[in-house]
Amino acid sequence: MTVLADLEAPLLRFEEALSELVQSDVLFVRLIHQDLVTAGGKRIRPRLVFLASRAIGGAPFELELALAVELLHSATLLHDDLIDDAETRRGKEAAFRKYGNAVSVLSGDFLLSRLLHVIARTGRMELVERFAEVARTLSEGEVLQFQVAALEDYSLENYERIITAKTAVLMELCTEGPALLKGVDGGVRQALARFGLLYGQAFQMRDDYLDLLGTPERLGKPVGGDLREGKATLATLLLMERFPEVREVLRRRGQEPGDLERLRALARESGVAEEVERRIRERARLAAEALKPLPDSPYKEALRELALREAERLS
Amino acid sequence: MTVLADLEAPLLRFEEALSELVQSDVLFVRLIHQDLVTAGGKRIRPRLVFLASRAIGGAPFELELALAVELLHSATLLHDDLIDDAETRRGKEAAFRKYGNAVSVLSGDFLLSRLLHVIARTGRMELVERFAEVARTLSEGEVLQFQVAALEDYSLENYERIITAKTAVLMELCTEGPALLKGVDGGVRQALARFGLLYGQAFQMRDDYLDLLGTPERLGKPVGGDLREGKATLATLLLMERFPEVREVLRRRGQEPGDLERLRALARESGVAEEVERRIRERARLAAEALKPLPDSPYKEALRELALREAERLS
Repeated sequence: MTVLADLEAPLLRFEEALSELVQSDVLFVRLIHQDLVTAGGKRIRPRLVFLASRAIGGAPFELELALAVELLHSATLLHDDLIDDAETRRGKEAAFRKYGNAVSVLSGDFLLSRLLHVIARTGRMELVERFAEVARTLSEGEVLQFQVAALEDYSLENYERIITAKTAVLMELCTEGPALLKGVDGGVRQALARFGLLYGQAFQMRDDYLDLLGTPERLGKPVGGDLREGKATLATLLLMERFPEVREVLRRRGQEPGDLERLRALARESGVAEEVERRIRERARLAAEALKPLPDSPYKEALRELALREAERLS
Repeated sequence: MTVLADLEAPLLRFEEALSELVQSDVLFVRLIHQDLVTAGGKRIRPRLVFLASRAIGGAPFELELALAVELLHSATLLHDDLIDDAETRRGKEAAFRKYGNAVSVLSGDFLLSRLLHVIARTGRMELVERFAEVARTLSEGEVLQFQVAALEDYSLENYERIITAKTAVLMELCTEGPALLKGVDGGVRQALARFGLLYGQAFQMRDDYLDLLGTPERLGKPVGGDLREGKATLATLLLMERFPEVREVLRRRGQEPGDLERLRALARESGVAEEVERRIRERARLAAEALKPLPDSPYKEALRELALREAERLS
């Protein structure tokens, strides 16, 4: 409770700084940002930054780091809108439907330029280099996901690589970043990095689980999006091992009536849904465990709870 | 002649370093880059970097700068493919037709991550900040161009703003960058910056001229692309002032048979084509003149000739 209250002030400063940062005198850039950036999401990544920073007694430039990770995440969403073809994103009409794919992509580029600006402000070249690595992994992970769908190169190994690249490495930077900025090395920095990575994997596994097996309300967009794009997630992969016909459903992108419902039922009945839940719980547990080297504090406890929560609220 | 020979070695090193920089173990990322990046363009921007560097006696990190400007340019092309909907780009099938818009956008993001890496290598935060500015202006300029077409907000002022933002500021960084990296300030740095900016404007004005009034061979893609996207360039703007019906042609994106040919004939007969040529020559002359504060050298002369060449080869 006190931890949540503690985060209010930095999160408020964050919103103000973000709004300021994405100011533009080009009308269409402003419209996109009203729609996506400043309308707010759950700000999970900035929260991770602030908690990790406080768990090590406060780090310099935590605000800049929080802004930079959210800008990278938002740019990815903008570049994802045309990929995912999701009809709603964060419960709103997708930006590109209003202004065209072009403006979405370019507005994403605008956010990336502001990311560059905000990390330059820290004067820390090591941070620039870390963002370069994360951005590289992120874009490669997204392309790999597309490639796996195009070549039907489905495997658990590729799945792990994709969730790590497209989600977990950025979360790793969220929690490791404060240690980097504070010059904290060794076990504590490693613990924070490891937590972020494992938490990110659990986070994406849960997201994928809900995409197939959840409800539109919980997911915040229509379910079955991954299936429509030929993306095999953990549940689909485990189903495919047992029921070869699932590959056919994926190949036709779940286009036949009842395909999605059949997969959902199959996952429930075969125990695959439960198996996925078990693996998410296990990943979340590993994340929580990774925090051990950190000194005890309400912030450490808040990070732990954040991870364990990924293993709940699954249905 | 000696200048051209001098550039051979750095341009060769450039190609090698670029190929290495965009290596990826994701197949689809490699395919895109074989198609676009490593297949080579005219490398105008790296040439500008090497010439400007040599014109001030050589600057540190000229290779990194050359790589970074080309990466930004290539990423813009990848993000532009889906915008321009050009059927050919650099005479090749546009990347997105083969692998989908998604992969083009994400591969562009991959290049941007490599840009970040290569400028981090210089250890110069001022360069990071300059790239942040240029990338911001570039994306805003591209969005503005889209906005102007959508709102029919056509004006010479907007045209100047667009060509400056989407082309000239990057060329400004090409020629000013070596001075920044060498710590050269004052008149020489200003002269190089001014040259790059004016040269970039002349360059884009010529490109726009050829898009309406040139041949597909000279342009490297089908003519009339700007018209099809509702983009008013200098010739169209001057035509609009004299012939109100041109606005109607632009509004319908030149979709009626004979629209493009009618505009071309009108520009020739009315003297608008000549007027545009005159303005390009004038801009190129200003660029050449901007070089005055530089010490005389074959490299200064080569930059001058580069600018003056934009004013020739117009038909």
